[in-house]
Amino acid sequence: MARRQGETLYSVLADEIAAMIAAGTLQPGDKLPSLRELRDRRGVSLATVNEAFRVLEERALIEARPQSGFFVRQRLCEPPPSSRPRLVPAAVTVNRRLWDYLQLTRGKRRSFCYAVMSPSCFPNRQLQKLMNDTLREQPGMLSDYGGPRGLEILRRQIAVHTLEWGGRLTADDIQVTAGGIEALNLALRAVTQPGDVVAVESPTYFGLLQLFESMGLKTLEIPTDPEHGMSVDALDLATRDGNVAACVMMPNFSNPTGSLMSDAAKLRLVKLLDERGVPLIEDDIYGEFYQGRDRPRPAKAFDETGNVLYCASYTKLVAPGMRVGWISAGRYSSQVEIIKYINTFSTPAIMQATLARFLESGAYEQHLRKLRKLCSEQLCRVSDGLARYFPEGTRWTRPRGGYLCWVELPNGVDTMRLLEDAVQEDISFAPGSLFSARRAYRNYLRLCCGEPWSPQVDGALRRLGELAKRHVDRGESSRRSDAGLVLPHPGQAPRIIVPQTI
Amino acid sequence: MARRQGETLYSVLADEIAAMIAAGTLQPGDKLPSLRELRDRRGVSLATVNEAFRVLEERALIEARPQSGFFVRQRLCEPPPSSRPRLVPAAVTVNRRLWDYLQLTRGKRRSFCYAVMSPSCFPNRQLQKLMNDTLREQPGMLSDYGGPRGLEILRRQIAVHTLEWGGRLTADDIQVTAGGIEALNLALRAVTQPGDVVAVESPTYFGLLQLFESMGLKTLEIPTDPEHGMSVDALDLATRDGNVAACVMMPNFSNPTGSLMSDAAKLRLVKLLDERGVPLIEDDIYGEFYQGRDRPRPAKAFDETGNVLYCASYTKLVAPGMRVGWISAGRYSSQVEIIKYINTFSTPAIMQATLARFLESGAYEQHLRKLRKLCSEQLCRVSDGLARYFPEGTRWTRPRGGYLCWVELPNGVDTMRLLEDAVQEDISFAPGSLFSARRAYRNYLRLCCGEPWSPQVDGALRRLGELAKRHVDRGESSRRSDAGLVLPHPGQAPRIIVPQTI
Repeated sequence: MARRQGETLYSVLADEIAAMIAAGTLQPGDKLPSLRELRDRRGVSLATVNEAFRVLEERALIEARPQSGFFVRQRLCEPPPSSRPRLVPAAVTVNRRLWDYLQLTRGKRRSFCYAVMSPSCFPNRQLQKLMNDTLREQPGMLSDYGGPRGLEILRRQIAVHTLEWGGRLTADDIQVTAGGIEALNLALRAVTQPGDVVAVESPTYFGLLQLFESMGLKTLEIPTDPEHGMSVDALDLATRDGNVAACVMMPNFSNPTGSLMSDAAKLRLVKLLDERGVPLIEDDIYGEFYQGRDRPRPAKAFDETGNVLYCASYTKLVAPGMRVGWISAGRYSSQVEIIKYINTFSTPAIMQATLARFLESGAYEQHLRKLRKLCSEQLCRVSDGLARYFPEGTRWTRPRGGYLCWVELPNGVDTMRLLEDAVQEDISFAPGSLFSARRAYRNYLRLCCGEPWSPQVDGALRRLGELAKRHVDRGESSRRSDAGLVLPHPGQAPRIIVPQTI
Repeated sequence: MARRQGETLYSVLADEIAAMIAAGTLQPGDKLPSLRELRDRRGVSLATVNEAFRVLEERALIEARPQSGFFVRQRLCEPPPSSRPRLVPAAVTVNRRLWDYLQLTRGKRRSFCYAVMSPSCFPNRQLQKLMNDTLREQPGMLSDYGGPRGLEILRRQIAVHTLEWGGRLTADDIQVTAGGIEALNLALRAVTQPGDVVAVESPTYFGLLQLFESMGLKTLEIPTDPEHGMSVDALDLATRDGNVAACVMMPNFSNPTGSLMSDAAKLRLVKLLDERGVPLIEDDIYGEFYQGRDRPRPAKAFDETGNVLYCASYTKLVAPGMRVGWISAGRYSSQVEIIKYINTFSTPAIMQATLARFLESGAYEQHLRKLRKLCSEQLCRVSDGLARYFPEGTRWTRPRGGYLCWVELPNGVDTMRLLEDAVQEDISFAPGSLFSARRAYRNYLRLCCGEPWSPQVDGALRRLGELAKRHVDRGESSRRSDAGLVLPHPGQAPRIIVPQTI
C-alpha cells in the first residue's frame, strides 16, 4: 500500500474503501470482503483491517450486520434535518396529549411504542436464581429499609463498571434510585425551582416534558441534529443571559432520535455549562447499547468540577421489573440524597443485592454483548423495512446505538391520527408531537426496535407503511381535528397541572 | 343492676366502673377483675362485660395489657396540651435541620428514631417462600415493567381488605406506589401547584414538610390536640378565605403524636373540605395498628364525592424492604396515574405478586394480630419507662394505636442538643423541631416504640431520661447554639431549595 509519512496502515486502507464508496464502486447494501480476505489480499495484519473497519463505522460509511459481516450503509436512509426551534422558553402542557397516547396504546401487541427490549431478551432465570440465593441467605432483606443511598455492595459494583468509560467514581459517589426516571426526578428537584427554565434537546423524551409540567418548569428547546445531537453553539447562545437553570440531555443515543454527540462536543458542552454555572443533567440510559467496539463516553467523563448529574439505569439493560437505576450527582449529591429520602425513601434491598451479584459475575458482560447484537440487528431490519415499505420522502435516523428510530413522514401527515388508525390493527408507536412542548413534529414518529425480528414484526411494519402511504394520499393535513379520541373516564381527564402563566 | 329505661346493661356497668375510677376507688395502674370474674359476680353475660370494657377503653379510662388483663390507665401519663400555631402560611425550610438529624442518627443501634417495627417482627420466611414460588412460576416477572397502576391481583386484594373499614373500593380505584411516601408525593403533585398553601396538623411528620419544601409549597399549621387530632373548627376558620389548596393529615394515630380523631370529627372534616373544594390527602399508614377491637375508620370511609386521596402502605405492616404502598385518589385518579408514570413508572411486579399472595392467605391477618399486640405492649412499656425515668414535668401521649409517642420535656430543654448527647451513647430519637415549619416544639421529642422490649431498650430509655434530667438541670435553654453539628461533607450542605420569598 502506498503510504504517506505519518499515515497509519489502517487509515490508508480506510480511505481507499471510503473512496470506493464515494465513487459508487461500492454501492449501499454491498457486502464488504471479510476481515480475513482483506488481510490476505492486502498483506496487512488482521488488527489493521479491524481498525480500518472501525474508522469506517465511525464515519457511518459501513455497518456490521450480526452474523453476516460488514456492509456499505444504506444511503437510502437519509436522516431528518436538524431541528430549528425558536429559542424562547415555553410552559409545558403535554399532559392531555400524553394521556390520550397512553390510553390509545395500552396493551397493544405489535408495539413499536415501548422503549424497552422484549422480555425474552433478559436473563430471567439467572436473576431468579440469584434472587432466591440471596433471600435464602438473608431473609431479613425483605424487612430492611436498606437506607436511602442504596446498598454499598451495589454502589461499589456500579462504580467498578464505570471504569469502562473513565468514570473514576467511588461507591460514595453513587445514589441508587427506582429506575432511571426517578434519577431524573431527583436531579431536577435538586437543582431547579418551580418557574425555572430548563434547556433540552429538540425533540426530547416526552416523559421529561411531563416531568417539567408537573414541576412547574419551563422548557427551552435547543436546535438538535438527529445524528450529532444538541448544537453546543445554540446552547452557548441560549445560556448567555443567565436565564437557564439547568440542562437535561442524552448525549449518547438520545430519545427519540438516537443521536450521538462527539467527544469534542461533549467536552465543550461540559466546560460551557460549568463556566455558566448551569448544572448538566445527563441521561445515559442508552449508553451501553453501542454498536461499535467502544462504549461512547458520557459527558460525565469530562466533568472535572462535579457539575454533571449523571443518570443511568439497569431497567433497560438487565431487568425492567427490578426498577433499579442510579445517579452520580457530583456536587449536588446531598440534595439528591435528601430528595430520594422523601420521594421513595429507598429502593428494595433484595433487588439491589441481586443486581450486585449479577454485575459481579461475568454473566453481565455476556448478556450485554447479546443485547447489543440484538439491538443492532433490529435497528438494521427496521431501517430496511422503512426503505421498503414507507412512502416516498420518508426520512429516518440510523443510530449507532440504542434501539430507537426517529422517522419523518412527508409533510402533512399527522402521526397522532396515523396512530389512531394503527391501534385498530394492534400496532402502536409514539407520535412525534409528544416530543416537543411546542407541538412540533406532527409528521414525525418514534419507532422502538426492541422486539426480536419476526415475520409478525415485519408484517406490522409493512402494514404501518401502508397506512402511512394512505395518510399521505389522503392529504390528512387539511383535516385537523382531535375528534375520535375518547377518554375512558370522560369526567376524569387530567387537568393541566401547570398554569399557562408560569 | 339498676338500669334506667333505654340504657343498655353494658353502659350501666361501664358507668359504674368509670365512677369508681373518678372517685379514686380504682387507682391508676390497678388491675380490673377479669371478664369471667365480673360475669360471675354481676350475673351478666360475657358479651356484656366485654362491651363495657370496650367502652371504657374508648374513653381511655382503662387499657389492655397483653397477657395480663385490663388495668386502669396511668394517670401519670398526662398528654401535652393542644398546639396553638398562628394561622399564617409559612414557607418551609427544614432541609438543613433534617440533614443534620439524618447525619447524627445514621446507624445508631439503640434507636427510638426509626418509625418502623424491628426487622424481627416481620414474616420474612413466609415472604421469601412466596416470592420464590412466584418467580419460579413466572420468571418473566423480573423483565416485565408491570404497568404504572400496578398488578390487578394485588389491587383486588387491597380492595377486598378495605371492606374492614367500609372502603367500598374496587381494584380500579387503587394505584400501587413505591411505599406510602410515594403515595404522598403523587397526591401532592396531583392537586397542588408550586406556591400553594397546604394545611397540616401541628406537629406533623417532618418528611411531609421536606416534601413541601422541595415542591415549593407553603404550609399552614392547624391547631391539633395530641389525643384527638386536628381541630376541625380551626380548619374551618383557616379554609374560609379559599387560600388553602389541600389538606394533608393522619386522622388515625398521627405521626408524631399518635392522635386519633373521632368518627364524628372525621365526618365533619370530610364534609367541610368537600364543600370548600379542598382535596383531603389522608395518610393512613398507622390505621391497621389499632389496639382495641375495631379498626378505626379512615376519613375515606366518609367520602361520598371522591375528594379524599387515601394513602396507605404495606411497608410498616408486612415488609419495609418491599416498598409497596397504594393510593385511592378518588376523582384525582387519572392525574395520580400519570404522575406515577413519570415519577417511578411502576412498582416491581414481583413485590406486588408476592404481597398479593400473602394478603390472600390467612397469614396476613395472623401476622397483623401479632404486630398489634407487640405495638400495644411496647407503647405500654415506654409509657411506664417515661413515668419512671424522665424528669418531673414531662408529659407524653399514650396513643391507642401505632407505635409512636410524643413527649414534652420541661420548657427550656432543647431536644436537638439532647440528641447530640444521646447519639454519643448510641441512642437516638427524633427531636421536636423537625415536626414544624415554625421551628416550634424545641422541647419535644418523638419516640418510636418499634423495638421489642428488652433490658437493652429499657436501659436506653433510662439513660435517655438521665440525660434529659441533666439538660433540665443545666438550663440548656440559655445557651442556644448549633455548634458541634459537623456535616460529613462540609462543602456539600444542601442548599435551601425553596426561596424564602415563596
